[in-house]
Amino acid sequence: MKERVLSGMQPSGYLHLGNFAGALKNWVRLQDIYDCFYCVVDWHALTSNYANPSPIADYKHDMLINFIAAGLDPNKCTIFLQSAVKQHAELHLLLSMITPLGWLERVPTYKEKQTEIKDKDLNTYGFLGYPVLQAADILIYKARHVPVGVDQIPHLELTREIARRFEFLYGKGILTEPEPLLTESPKVVGLDGRKMSKSYDNAIYLSDTPEQIDKKIRQMMTDPARKRKTDKGDPELSPVYALHKIFSSPDEIAHVAAACKTAEIGCIDCKRILIKNISKELEPLWSKREELTGSPSMLKDILNAGNRRAAAEAEKTMELIREAMNLS
Amino acid sequence: MKERVLSGMQPSGYLHLGNFAGALKNWVRLQDIYDCFYCVVDWHALTSNYANPSPIADYKHDMLINFIAAGLDPNKCTIFLQSAVKQHAELHLLLSMITPLGWLERVPTYKEKQTEIKDKDLNTYGFLGYPVLQAADILIYKARHVPVGVDQIPHLELTREIARRFEFLYGKGILTEPEPLLTESPKVVGLDGRKMSKSYDNAIYLSDTPEQIDKKIRQMMTDPARKRKTDKGDPELSPVYALHKIFSSPDEIAHVAAACKTAEIGCIDCKRILIKNISKELEPLWSKREELTGSPSMLKDILNAGNRRAAAEAEKTMELIREAMNLS
Repeated sequence: MKERVLSGMQPSGYLHLGNFAGALKNWVRLQDIYDCFYCVVDWHALTSNYANPSPIADYKHDMLINFIAAGLDPNKCTIFLQSAVKQHAELHLLLSMITPLGWLERVPTYKEKQTEIKDKDLNTYGFLGYPVLQAADILIYKARHVPVGVDQIPHLELTREIARRFEFLYGKGILTEPEPLLTESPKVVGLDGRKMSKSYDNAIYLSDTPEQIDKKIRQMMTDPARKRKTDKGDPELSPVYALHKIFSSPDEIAHVAAACKTAEIGCIDCKRILIKNISKELEPLWSKREELTGSPSMLKDILNAGNRRAAAEAEKTMELIREAMNLS
Repeated sequence: MKERVLSGMQPSGYLHLGNFAGALKNWVRLQDIYDCFYCVVDWHALTSNYANPSPIADYKHDMLINFIAAGLDPNKCTIFLQSAVKQHAELHLLLSMITPLGWLERVPTYKEKQTEIKDKDLNTYGFLGYPVLQAADILIYKARHVPVGVDQIPHLELTREIARRFEFLYGKGILTEPEPLLTESPKVVGLDGRKMSKSYDNAIYLSDTPEQIDKKIRQMMTDPARKRKTDKGDPELSPVYALHKIFSSPDEIAHVAAACKTAEIGCIDCKRILIKNISKELEPLWSKREELTGSPSMLKDILNAGNRRAAAEAEKTMELIREAMNLS
């Protein structure tokens, strides 16, 4: 039997190339190796967007469409919506009872995010409890592995601590400590050379049309010192080159780097190659998305089946947990 | 249509005379006036008893039996178990998103209880969130009134604030601010003259046999200065007299007070009258409880019906809430 993997994505924006190359492609790869549960964590999106939840519905829809369009196969993995599986809320409540406040206050991202995000009031009970909800998401499926980047290891450690505490208090071998499945994901830069992110307004979205992508890349900054086509450039200073390294073939990467340094090609030529390669990468996604948009019931059916399967698995664990906590 | 009332009791001990005279008799009275929802809040019991939840199951059973034995009529009111209505957990999670931490930290009983209860680690996320769960319990039924004593008004005020904040953020006229239904409930003293409480080990339980009650009252302390039967006593210094004031008739109260002051009767006589009156008060409860114990399916059916009705009402509210928060 395949080991189980749980991963979730928060619908707090439209999916962009960064999410695609950084997470989604990895998810597609993992579905052949593990019993994967992939979750759109819409309740999590409320922890920071509670004051303006209206766009979440659109983000959710965009996310689900792109999950499947990117290659997640509902016959291989379970795709579901967090808020459709109410057991997550129940386990969140039960785990809240055994989670020391200090553990939550010491999560590194807790204070960081509060300081970083100035335009939202994150001094709420729900924002502090984010890691408890995350622990519930993972533990309720007894996931063996959670794909994470190095920076997210502290989060997962908290889930492991909560599982250990549950076992210490109610000790029935119910909850499994998940292991990090360390994933080297490419850092995708945005149009301005910073990390690609909705908040920087520098993203290429999976829902962008080919024309929008073309226009966005044509307007990208390159090596600022290269003013004329005849100037020699330094590809390492150009975010266009950074994207080549992710989306172009090794030969092309070598070619554009050399040709930039010798001024053999101009920035427009270089961008044209990138546009071609990004389009090539996204074409199967676009065509699959068209198919899905054309038959809305298909997406609905996939999601309903995923929700049902997830709820059945979650309920199995909850039955054991309720019994262990003398609630049944 | 009758206005709705919500009240809950935490199964963290067997029900005693204090709960009976202080709350339960009032609940019985209210069921004729309002559309009452009475809830055994077993999740709440976990906030302080998470480390040792095993007795909760027994307390829960004792509570339900005594609810009905004391006169709650399932045809007049809805009797249900909090943990059977999962929507409470979902609303707790959603309200957690909009509840400022400061509101919770400032609830008077939060620090008090933490200081008072030394043998339990109450520095948990769930204990801090107690009032959020309480708000969910009340708001999910759109309860118009909540019976409270003066000391609990700050708690209810927090529920009102959360309802206002919900309406401010999502403003759809969904959540109703509940009003306190101020209840003058008698302060029932225990065997030692302090407030009757499980933690003081001074309680007369509804599940005590007549013999146990007889024995407990016979051993009660009275006016400590009255050493011999011929000494004149001060009834105000005797906890037996305090119980007379709740369970005896005005005539008897006047009689025992006068007869104590003049040493006309001794403490044993005085106690005998109290035992008779408490027994008289509890006799219908005892006989109804015998009936219920004899047919366990009766209790189960009542609870199942109550849970179903509560869940249906809760789900109606949740549908509106999910829609208002763009989750549906």
